[in-house]
Amino acid sequence: MKRYEQFAEEIAALIRKRVLAPGERIPSVRQASRRYGISPSTVFQAYYRLERQGLIIARARSGYFVREQALRLPGEPSVAAQRLDPAEVAVSELAFSVLDSLRDTETVPFGSAFPGPELFPLARLAGSMTRGLRELPATAIVADMTEGHADLRRQILLRYGLNGLSLAPEELVITNGAMEALSLGLQCVTRPGDLVAIEAPAFYASLQLLERFGLRAIEIPVHPRDGIDLEVLEDRLARYPIRACWLMSHLQNPLGASLDDAAKRRLYALLKRHQVPLLEDDAYAELYFGTRPPRPVKWLDDAGLVMHCGSFSKCLAPGYRVGWMAAGRFASAVSRLRLMTTIAPSIPAQVAIADYLRRGSYDRHLRQLRHTLQSQQSAMLAAADRYFPTGTRITRPGGGYFLWCEFPERVDSLELFRQALKEGVSLAPGPIFSATQGFRHCARLSYGHPWTARSERAMETLGRLLASF
Amino acid sequence: MKRYEQFAEEIAALIRKRVLAPGERIPSVRQASRRYGISPSTVFQAYYRLERQGLIIARARSGYFVREQALRLPGEPSVAAQRLDPAEVAVSELAFSVLDSLRDTETVPFGSAFPGPELFPLARLAGSMTRGLRELPATAIVADMTEGHADLRRQILLRYGLNGLSLAPEELVITNGAMEALSLGLQCVTRPGDLVAIEAPAFYASLQLLERFGLRAIEIPVHPRDGIDLEVLEDRLARYPIRACWLMSHLQNPLGASLDDAAKRRLYALLKRHQVPLLEDDAYAELYFGTRPPRPVKWLDDAGLVMHCGSFSKCLAPGYRVGWMAAGRFASAVSRLRLMTTIAPSIPAQVAIADYLRRGSYDRHLRQLRHTLQSQQSAMLAAADRYFPTGTRITRPGGGYFLWCEFPERVDSLELFRQALKEGVSLAPGPIFSATQGFRHCARLSYGHPWTARSERAMETLGRLLASF
Repeated sequence: MKRYEQFAEEIAALIRKRVLAPGERIPSVRQASRRYGISPSTVFQAYYRLERQGLIIARARSGYFVREQALRLPGEPSVAAQRLDPAEVAVSELAFSVLDSLRDTETVPFGSAFPGPELFPLARLAGSMTRGLRELPATAIVADMTEGHADLRRQILLRYGLNGLSLAPEELVITNGAMEALSLGLQCVTRPGDLVAIEAPAFYASLQLLERFGLRAIEIPVHPRDGIDLEVLEDRLARYPIRACWLMSHLQNPLGASLDDAAKRRLYALLKRHQVPLLEDDAYAELYFGTRPPRPVKWLDDAGLVMHCGSFSKCLAPGYRVGWMAAGRFASAVSRLRLMTTIAPSIPAQVAIADYLRRGSYDRHLRQLRHTLQSQQSAMLAAADRYFPTGTRITRPGGGYFLWCEFPERVDSLELFRQALKEGVSLAPGPIFSATQGFRHCARLSYGHPWTARSERAMETLGRLLASF
Repeated sequence: MKRYEQFAEEIAALIRKRVLAPGERIPSVRQASRRYGISPSTVFQAYYRLERQGLIIARARSGYFVREQALRLPGEPSVAAQRLDPAEVAVSELAFSVLDSLRDTETVPFGSAFPGPELFPLARLAGSMTRGLRELPATAIVADMTEGHADLRRQILLRYGLNGLSLAPEELVITNGAMEALSLGLQCVTRPGDLVAIEAPAFYASLQLLERFGLRAIEIPVHPRDGIDLEVLEDRLARYPIRACWLMSHLQNPLGASLDDAAKRRLYALLKRHQVPLLEDDAYAELYFGTRPPRPVKWLDDAGLVMHCGSFSKCLAPGYRVGWMAAGRFASAVSRLRLMTTIAPSIPAQVAIADYLRRGSYDRHLRQLRHTLQSQQSAMLAAADRYFPTGTRITRPGGGYFLWCEFPERVDSLELFRQALKEGVSLAPGPIFSATQGFRHCARLSYGHPWTARSERAMETLGRLLASF
């Protein structure tokens, strides 16, 4: 056990023994460093680990605190065993029936993939749209289609720069959301029949895309906290001619798992050795609850192998459909594919977002959004603790707006989905996150909407249905 | 020869003999009907034919006039002979180099695929955007992603209705421009290796898409005025297992050709007999110079075989990226494909266009736009007549903003493209419109930008370069 792991264990023990009580402030990095005679960076690593375990939280400019739910939480889900063989993918029908269920606004949207629109500065964005369009030269409405709106490109490059990555401008391709970026990137590096390594459980749209392009999935298990299993990935890369790897290094959908820095380095070394391109889906990048933005695998990419996909859809402007890809050596090919698929993302939407970013209130909005999501997470976890049956295991992700629930084996989440829908509650059943329809006793629940008495009743309903299995 | 053809020939003869002089008004339908003792509908058919031949033009509420250029025009291009075998498609590199050439705003954009942004009511659209976003309920920004903005859907259905087609609402899929509609439609009905019947010359993006999806092209020649050769199509449908047909029934790009009603009926009967789906690209639908909107093949579609693709990009809102597809029996499949490719077109763009349409100034704008394009066409035709070498043949389309030039055989349009670009003039060389790199002595010129002294000089430059071959 490394020194920081040891120290993290000591603090965790103090929390379990209630020496450090829920809500209490824990020693600052400087204090702990002095008191325990270890370096500040070791303390920091330990705190980061505790944060990812859901035991402590960081509050900007106030330090670290024991989480209110630190002790009352159900256990974390285990890693499901995965089948070894490449699998043909067939998940679309199921995923679409879940999507369809979300169109009724009377339904409590625990199954939704988008957070509540109330959380976004839509009026300010509309103001930016008005201003931006007024200032836009007429010629730009056509000229900006090829490369994207120049000012938006600058703002995105700037944000990479502020997080320590000096991205070559020609790597950046503006897209119709991260979804188009991922779809184009996948088409760029695969042919029908190719093998693609993906996570299990995985974002269902990645499974749909594999299905559609006739690709075969190699499922790599994901640990609910630590992310993709690198032992398994290493083994599969050695045994199969894998053409691409598609994963989320941070706030993985649906588990909320994140790779730590060492794991990211190991992952990148592996992919580089096999020259396998990485589609790094980073749609939830801005929704971390910690104090510092994570640094995705792209930050290690000295060979242009990583296609890093970002979006404004989950953190600022849902429905605007603006995302991007830092596409490494594939940038020019991806850009051309886009020109012959959708030509360009909507210019007014790009103009509005560029103006909004330029005016500098984005970071303030993000702090507010993270804070809101974090308290909604607490509320949902507390409700799960109240209403869900013993034996339920739930993730406590360090960001995003999804909980992954592993119910007792007897629960059939597809049946739960159908019954809950009848009672006006949606959820995302486990099998839609699997190429092989696994995770049958699991479900993803979203806490992305404002928490109300209705949400509370919906959790109670789910609890009642779960008890009936 | 039918009666209306006969009568059209009589009028054409009068024009050629200058009995009816350029600019002069010709007898009204009623007058002609009385004077020649034929039915008004026969007169109307004849005038329609003369209009399509470029000899007369209709002016709203004023009647028909002999075109200024009716006699000074060079001849029309002939139909090029096409190779018979299915062809692998490889045109992208060439097409992209043309697209790249258009990014320099100093270049005279005769090669452009979009008309000048000055021709669009961008300020009014921006006003509609501001108003529309203010009135949009927050929930709609997420909810409208599945089916599209409800009000925009209503407005589009209404325009179909006003042109005599009562479209089932569930047939309508909103897309990221017509380009995405065409791409999704093609993916929906083909698998790699399949044969697709396309026009020759064809819109180069259709060739790029075929190339990308591993499809093979069966090229069907297009007559510069009458459209696709139905004899050839009938033969090819009988001999090959063609999976889809992709064409433009009106204002074909690049030729500007349009099928008449009889041809459309015959075409539809053919496709229906073979149960071959039709991708009907109708992106230029609103840019007709006549007095009535054309009625595409979709209007005959009682079997749900036609995917009719429209767009606001060429007639109202370039860069907004909003189009649609009346997708017949394929609507649900296309809609799902879109959900897993780009999810949705930008909601603000849809909102702005819906508000603009609702306010009722669209038709006024379109009349103005058609009028402008028509006079720009006259200006370019006159300049071609002044500067281009004898033996050049040029189309005179009844709408849109493209001329197709067939130069003397000795001209190499790729070389012309390179030389012209050096002198600050772009054009679209013939081979980018062919799966087999044909049309080497042809080029497409756009008159979609305001006609200025610079345009005139550019035509002179082209003339000088052409003379040097």
